[in-house]
Amino acid sequence: MGVVVPFDEARSESESLDPLLHLVNEDMEAINRIILDKAVSDVDLIPQLAHHLIASGGKRLRPMLALASAKMCGYPGNGHIRTASAIEFMHTATLLHDDVVDESDARRGRKTARLIWGNQASVLVGDFLLGQAFRMLVDVGNMQVLKILSNAAAVIAEGEVMQLAAAKNTSTTEDAYLAIINAKTAALFLAAAEVGAALANRPADEQAAMRSYGRNLGLAFQLVDDALDYSGDTRKLGKSVGDDFREGKITLPLILSFRRGSETERAFWNRTIVEGDIKDDDLDHAIALMKKHKALEATMERARAYGAIARDALAIFPASAYKSAMEDVIAFSVNRGH
Amino acid sequence: MGVVVPFDEARSESESLDPLLHLVNEDMEAINRIILDKAVSDVDLIPQLAHHLIASGGKRLRPMLALASAKMCGYPGNGHIRTASAIEFMHTATLLHDDVVDESDARRGRKTARLIWGNQASVLVGDFLLGQAFRMLVDVGNMQVLKILSNAAAVIAEGEVMQLAAAKNTSTTEDAYLAIINAKTAALFLAAAEVGAALANRPADEQAAMRSYGRNLGLAFQLVDDALDYSGDTRKLGKSVGDDFREGKITLPLILSFRRGSETERAFWNRTIVEGDIKDDDLDHAIALMKKHKALEATMERARAYGAIARDALAIFPASAYKSAMEDVIAFSVNRGH
Repeated sequence: MGVVVPFDEARSESESLDPLLHLVNEDMEAINRIILDKAVSDVDLIPQLAHHLIASGGKRLRPMLALASAKMCGYPGNGHIRTASAIEFMHTATLLHDDVVDESDARRGRKTARLIWGNQASVLVGDFLLGQAFRMLVDVGNMQVLKILSNAAAVIAEGEVMQLAAAKNTSTTEDAYLAIINAKTAALFLAAAEVGAALANRPADEQAAMRSYGRNLGLAFQLVDDALDYSGDTRKLGKSVGDDFREGKITLPLILSFRRGSETERAFWNRTIVEGDIKDDDLDHAIALMKKHKALEATMERARAYGAIARDALAIFPASAYKSAMEDVIAFSVNRGH
Repeated sequence: MGVVVPFDEARSESESLDPLLHLVNEDMEAINRIILDKAVSDVDLIPQLAHHLIASGGKRLRPMLALASAKMCGYPGNGHIRTASAIEFMHTATLLHDDVVDESDARRGRKTARLIWGNQASVLVGDFLLGQAFRMLVDVGNMQVLKILSNAAAVIAEGEVMQLAAAKNTSTTEDAYLAIINAKTAALFLAAAEVGAALANRPADEQAAMRSYGRNLGLAFQLVDDALDYSGDTRKLGKSVGDDFREGKITLPLILSFRRGSETERAFWNRTIVEGDIKDDDLDHAIALMKKHKALEATMERARAYGAIARDALAIFPASAYKSAMEDVIAFSVNRGH
């Protein structure tokens, strides 16, 4: 049974993010400066809390995608820097609120902000960062970019509410789950990829291609996240293997195991997930059931399928270093170990 | 001692809001339709929770101000309808998050959404409404309006964090408190008044006048709120007299009573507010101390002073039914009993 998350490409995970990191390095430094600058406030709590999360070594995948998309589409201006910074703020705001909603204690290997400063501060600083994000977008002054990202903000929140409504519902269908991650995760990947083409004023078919790339990459990314929660390395993950299980979170590995399982197995899922009655060796048993039904392999298969759609979406663009780097991001997202 | 919140105008409270209600009646009906329409989602929890608060009989003062400002400034279009709807959504989002942060159980005479649907849903539906607000503003398509309201969103959240940082700090100064309510309350009144002039493309001095009117009206409104929390009629208020006291919230009546009090009295405030050790008759004693030091009268005096600034700010505009109605809103805000 050994490796449950097989590597399907020759390149290692870090190598596959390297080309993008290299291409956008200079712009990312500008973004890091803006992010620190815009998290400043006379109210000390705001920069303290914001920096805790911002400086905690996230991959900054979403702003990098916005930069790469703008550059691949030949955007000559500098509005992509602020736009990408706003996207990272939107993402950070979502993480702050998510951790409150999920009552999470750890993220990226550190205590969550809510554990240090409380739920109240996390809710309010999240609101502040979202406000700052829209301020930055107004500075950029492109109405289509504002449309894309205000739409994303509403859809992400809608997805989070959908997830809350599906909580502990073991009979959630794969389709219903897909609708949730489409909204809560893929919407911001979609927006990040789309804004580059929008800034560059590319024709509708290219903007649609970037949306498709972003959306499917986001789906793949989330599905791999879900698989890693049961199969990853706790040290690399920055959170514990089994967090989703302990929180009673419904993700695809669980959905598939439940559907493919026997009555006895479904009773196990209902006891642990619905009733929250979790004993010491239940996580091991859950992982064993997932292996038995190949639920983690199937989740990874789905992720690769969405990754393939993302790759095909890019096909209409001529070859370039940026295009190639954005293809590599798909491989990174599917093959990563954290 | 009888009446601690004196009426200083001949007209009754309801009369003073009537002229505005009458003038904007038709537009407000359009806004009510938009508000119901934009709170719709396939995720049932969203309209349920949003309608609970939206249909709970708030005064809708902020959207009415935006309408009146646009009309007084001669705005000929219809963007003011969506702009005002977005302002009400921003306000509703703030209330949802506020109730979570303050752990409030009642608002407008009803259970809070967080008590019925939980803190998690209140946080996320608040995020959704804020996203919808920005979507509506993008539809209006006026970059200055977007600038004013994205700025307000960030400032309001900043004010809420300031308030959180000052929580239970009995030695908060009046200035520090003013900075808090300037941000958390007055910023949205300011924005509501300003957007009308911005939509109508009025010269800078008129836009500045509307900002000043809105800001000072908002300060007056909040100070009266703070006084009513210790002197109002529970039935009319829709929440209990003494909520601020029980929550250890620092407001001007308390700040003044603490500063004007003896060492023994300060010990009382520190026991009840800082330590949260509140006995049965402590609220009565708190109100007695406020009466002794004329803290509620002083709070109302400050409110009237800001109201006077708001009135003078309007002076540069020629006489009109809208101007007169907006002056009456000042009287309403200062003289209201709820």
